[in-house]
Amino acid sequence: MIKTMVKVKWLDHLKLEATTQNGHSLILDTSKETGGLDSGPRPMELLLTGLGGCMMMDMVSILSKRRLELKSMDMDIIGERAEEHPRVYNKITVTINTYGVPKEEVERAFNLSKDKYCSAYAMLSQAVDIDYLLNIQEA
Amino acid sequence: MIKTMVKVKWLDHLKLEATTQNGHSLILDTSKETGGLDSGPRPMELLLTGLGGCMMMDMVSILSKRRLELKSMDMDIIGERAEEHPRVYNKITVTINTYGVPKEEVERAFNLSKDKYCSAYAMLSQAVDIDYLLNIQEA
Repeated sequence: MIKTMVKVKWLDHLKLEATTQNGHSLILDTSKETGGLDSGPRPMELLLTGLGGCMMMDMVSILSKRRLELKSMDMDIIGERAEEHPRVYNKITVTINTYGVPKEEVERAFNLSKDKYCSAYAMLSQAVDIDYLLNIQEA
Repeated sequence: MIKTMVKVKWLDHLKLEATTQNGHSLILDTSKETGGLDSGPRPMELLLTGLGGCMMMDMVSILSKRRLELKSMDMDIIGERAEEHPRVYNKITVTINTYGVPKEEVERAFNLSKDKYCSAYAMLSQAVDIDYLLNIQEA
């Protein structure tokens, strides 16, 4: 059984410090309009970041194992929030931009992440529809 | 419709930079054993961080509105991973430690977060059982 642990500590106002089991720390905060100091990302933004990061690491790793020379890759992850509490994401759209690798290889890597490897996708897709768009520029 | 957007960009190896819509950036990475440089938190750790941060901000905010003097608060969030891909969390345990506020007020704030306000809890609890433990030290 592999366990993952994160600690979160309240600092002041709504500012929090999170520390991962490998000693990486980050500040979380919220907007000034909602009582925060805007000194770090919002908790709900970290769900989108975790999703995008998970898919991107899978894809980079899969393309690298195929010895393909990825020149660049970036992603926009947009979540649309419910109006009422709890203000969950009702829809998430992931736009993936790649440069340097053939279309079929990017699609293969994306599908392997989505359907097999990405644990964040497997979890969040149980709670929300996740759409995606691939913008592939070959070398 | 309120939208939340995060950008994620591939840097090198499996190192990524995420930037939120308010301009906060963070580095994501993975372990050296899995091809990373261990220069930042893992994507799946951000799901636990988002969950803990969301619940803590709710609770601090609710206790503050009751004009209660919270002296400290921290949280451990532990996720147990599946052995097989996709390596989702099969169970999450949240341990909340508070100091300075009466037990019934902490429980009230926790229940309001869990049952009404916390959007990360509302989403992740659709995919995984979330257990919790409250360690309350009154003033």
